[in-house]
Amino acid sequence: MTEYHPGLDGVIATESSISDIDGGKGVLSYRGYSIEDLAQNSTFEETAYLLLTGELPKKDELSKFSENLTKAMKLPDELAALLKAYPKDSESMFVLQSVVATLGSFYNVDFDADKLKSNNYDPDYYLSVSANLLGSIGSVVAAWNRIKEGKDLVEPDTNKSYSENIMYMLNNEQAVSKLVNRIIDATLILHAEHTINASTFTAMVTSSTLAKPAQVIASGIGSLSGPLHGGANQKVILMLEDIGRKENVREWLDKRLSSKQVVWGMGHREYSTKDPRANILTEMVKQLFEEQSGKVSEMFETAMELEQACEAKLSQKGVYANVDFYSGILYKEIGIPVDLFTPLFAISRTSGWLAHWIEQVCNNKIFRPTQNYIGSKPRKL
Amino acid sequence: MTEYHPGLDGVIATESSISDIDGGKGVLSYRGYSIEDLAQNSTFEETAYLLLTGELPKKDELSKFSENLTKAMKLPDELAALLKAYPKDSESMFVLQSVVATLGSFYNVDFDADKLKSNNYDPDYYLSVSANLLGSIGSVVAAWNRIKEGKDLVEPDTNKSYSENIMYMLNNEQAVSKLVNRIIDATLILHAEHTINASTFTAMVTSSTLAKPAQVIASGIGSLSGPLHGGANQKVILMLEDIGRKENVREWLDKRLSSKQVVWGMGHREYSTKDPRANILTEMVKQLFEEQSGKVSEMFETAMELEQACEAKLSQKGVYANVDFYSGILYKEIGIPVDLFTPLFAISRTSGWLAHWIEQVCNNKIFRPTQNYIGSKPRKL
Repeated sequence: MTEYHPGLDGVIATESSISDIDGGKGVLSYRGYSIEDLAQNSTFEETAYLLLTGELPKKDELSKFSENLTKAMKLPDELAALLKAYPKDSESMFVLQSVVATLGSFYNVDFDADKLKSNNYDPDYYLSVSANLLGSIGSVVAAWNRIKEGKDLVEPDTNKSYSENIMYMLNNEQAVSKLVNRIIDATLILHAEHTINASTFTAMVTSSTLAKPAQVIASGIGSLSGPLHGGANQKVILMLEDIGRKENVREWLDKRLSSKQVVWGMGHREYSTKDPRANILTEMVKQLFEEQSGKVSEMFETAMELEQACEAKLSQKGVYANVDFYSGILYKEIGIPVDLFTPLFAISRTSGWLAHWIEQVCNNKIFRPTQNYIGSKPRKL
Repeated sequence: MTEYHPGLDGVIATESSISDIDGGKGVLSYRGYSIEDLAQNSTFEETAYLLLTGELPKKDELSKFSENLTKAMKLPDELAALLKAYPKDSESMFVLQSVVATLGSFYNVDFDADKLKSNNYDPDYYLSVSANLLGSIGSVVAAWNRIKEGKDLVEPDTNKSYSENIMYMLNNEQAVSKLVNRIIDATLILHAEHTINASTFTAMVTSSTLAKPAQVIASGIGSLSGPLHGGANQKVILMLEDIGRKENVREWLDKRLSSKQVVWGMGHREYSTKDPRANILTEMVKQLFEEQSGKVSEMFETAMELEQACEAKLSQKGVYANVDFYSGILYKEIGIPVDLFTPLFAISRTSGWLAHWIEQVCNNKIFRPTQNYIGSKPRKL
């Protein structure tokens, strides 16, 4: 093992049962179920439960899990007070990482290395810890946006699903179209897990020190905040703003490609065919287009034009629009502030990070790779 | 590359010029200088500068760096207010990870992927960002402890060194013995860097997404908080409390070893001889013992007895007391609250994490290893 692979490209870092990608065929599956099947036939709660436990929930299991999620969505007063103490111009991802790091102070998590060793934690334990974290993280994102906008916090509604509650707590609006609800739920399902990406890997490394689960998720959020990782759907919007009207697309793209600059939302290193998550969102974009016919934004039109222009120029190289391209556009069209795109990704991916936390600690070895030392020879002061 | 090495044991994750370990010979060096040389002949500021830039500072470089550090130690009012909003019974490492994640809201760090690509950042840039983070993290640890104990915050004193200021801001006492100051400074030097351990690796993975440096450090803190990593010197103290009087040591140790339980602070996977950092601290323990003769605590005596008992039983297996064993005892004897041991470790290691952040982003490839999928075969809902 003397070869160095930058970025650990191709290096096996774990054995995992959580998700699988076949990049050539464009297949992504969670616990054996294809992402298309899950996006069409399950809810985010069911998918999260599946990721965490390995199996889809029975009816009573689901209602208990959902109940725990909703309970955790009601933020303790002291946590709401803490949220109000952040500078109002803070980036949402900074606040999210920060608040998550302190969740252990509000939801007491009894997680102990010695107990773990003697196998004292059962599946219910992991499920209840996960529901606490997942529930509160969803609320924190919504609450922070309310606070930033100078609005009162909205309490979760026990009759709503997890994703409905996030939208409700964000906007304080009861009536949202069924399609919009489905789109939000589907994007949460689609972003929940994607094998050993940088943020999941970060969460695994932190897990391997037997740090508390909130610390694990906070570390994952740190990596997701990076522009090479979770920020891509925000970059898509900034890029579309930069392009402007759809008439500008072709010229902009020629210039961009000839100067070898990134076209955000295009291509994915894991797929040589179209990202299966993007396929699902393409359908939803079309439906949203129909539902809103006549009301489509200029940016939406620019995006569709860019997608077609890229398809013509790049698809023979295996470069297609990826999940970030469509989720960015959909979120924007639904009226979600751009600053919330990556936090929403983080909410969703928390379910995957927690699944990897459980997998890691149940069969743990601390991560401690080695290095090629290429620095100064021994010297003296 | 089809072999799976749990924990990436033996797998080369990077090429690095920052530090080097020769575990057989018991040598640890930073940028070519042995840790003994640095602990005896440099200060923490100089060592941090060395780690960050590759060279020891000239006189004017050092004074500029120290000035920036002290400036950053003065916490903005809004940051002090945020600190006061945490529940007073929060674990210090939770608060530290949390506050660090939000430092980008207080010390505006202009770190941009496109600028990085066009090589627009010079060494001064990295040094000033690092001084901001390192300075403020030291203050945050001290300030949080004051707040937790219901005391007023203490402003940094521009005439004091970094480590003197941390003690001053913790205790609001001007006069500390020279030896105690030297011990604190030395422990900061000794803990600053240790090749690719779990927290440094976490920081590198987060760096590779081009996340902001505060996010990188917050992720590293998450991993350091784990009991298998940064918590070991706290565990040493809890263990010593559990043992009680020195007369109990031999019986306790026999029982512990026969039940194959961990003896905290003994052995280190990187060294088959004595941890060189432990050698340096052993000397300091002796000096502190002399300075405080007649005032040595019961716990101190128990620790010395345990060390001797372990040396007799374990040294032929290459297991010796490590850096955590002595730093725990020294900190305890100096009167530092146990809850602060790992945060002090974090302050010190921040210099190493920042060095790895700089190294990573200057020659970046995002970390994305692969996995052996061992989960469910394709199935349908």
